[in-house]
Amino acid sequence: MRRFHKLDFPVSEIRRFLEPGPIVLVSSAWQGKINIMTMGWHMMMGFSPALFACYIWDENHSFEMIRRSKQCVINLPTTDLINQAVGIGNCSGRTVDKFAEFGLTPAPGEKVEAPLIQECYANFECRLADGGQIARHNLFIWEVVQAHVAASPRYPETFHYRGDGIFMISGRSINLRRKFKPERL
Amino acid sequence: MRRFHKLDFPVSEIRRFLEPGPIVLVSSAWQGKINIMTMGWHMMMGFSPALFACYIWDENHSFEMIRRSKQCVINLPTTDLINQAVGIGNCSGRTVDKFAEFGLTPAPGEKVEAPLIQECYANFECRLADGGQIARHNLFIWEVVQAHVAASPRYPETFHYRGDGIFMISGRSINLRRKFKPERL
Repeated sequence: MRRFHKLDFPVSEIRRFLEPGPIVLVSSAWQGKINIMTMGWHMMMGFSPALFACYIWDENHSFEMIRRSKQCVINLPTTDLINQAVGIGNCSGRTVDKFAEFGLTPAPGEKVEAPLIQECYANFECRLADGGQIARHNLFIWEVVQAHVAASPRYPETFHYRGDGIFMISGRSINLRRKFKPERL
Repeated sequence: MRRFHKLDFPVSEIRRFLEPGPIVLVSSAWQGKINIMTMGWHMMMGFSPALFACYIWDENHSFEMIRRSKQCVINLPTTDLINQAVGIGNCSGRTVDKFAEFGLTPAPGEKVEAPLIQECYANFECRLADGGQIARHNLFIWEVVQAHVAASPRYPETFHYRGDGIFMISGRSINLRRKFKPERL
């Protein structure tokens, strides 16, 4: 599997990777166990602090690990990991050690106990910013407190879920910077 | 501009279009005025009811129109509308009639007063499901109550924002249905 050389990245600029809506892998740690889940329901909510929200189904094994630890890492996989992402989404951490099963490497974070997935293009360490909507909506609002991003390529090839087993693969980029007011970029 | 032939679509299946994370146009109506804003911070939150959340900056002219009317339409533009989407995001409804300025056609919705944008591939009529996080997080939680989707193509070419004036255009599809458990699709 591909290994990326990652650098610290400003958390106020992580929209570059998350706003386009890719599937991400959420890693967690609780009481000596680590786990991974596949997630597509998430959004940016702020630049500084860098807020990020996600919906986690409460039947996922990760739900309680994440709710109790109040931490997670959002890992951004590139298309070469698409089969692993589907596999991770189709088994449960109750019975499977997903790092071992899918050949992924947990690496220590700087600010959270949850592990980074080394093979992913980027890793965003998150601390719970607001848990007030977990009980009602399964909605977690995170502050991204540390970001690790591959030095290249500038724009990773990501995969985006359409449901029903179908993924959209990210395509070409278009630069329309000249059409923006500077304060609207 | 392109005109789509749209059909009613099951609201429980709109993740096909929204989960991949495209830029959408949000239309609103309040006190005899209509408006449009460009939005990239949104996520699916449920199938049935079909819940959808979005962050709307409170300095946008649309913010008060949407907060007060408790309704909006989420319109899905295809790449041929990318210049209009940038233009809409770089002016204000305080001073510009955006439908007229950008040559877009407002069409009546079935269940909300906010107009559909006829030139968009899909239109999702929304009623506010939970406004409890608007004051704290600018977060609106919607129920999509009616969906209108073009009969073809099955997967529209959408654009996704990376910030800094750069967009990602949706690429090819991959079908991995055979790798899913039926209940996980």
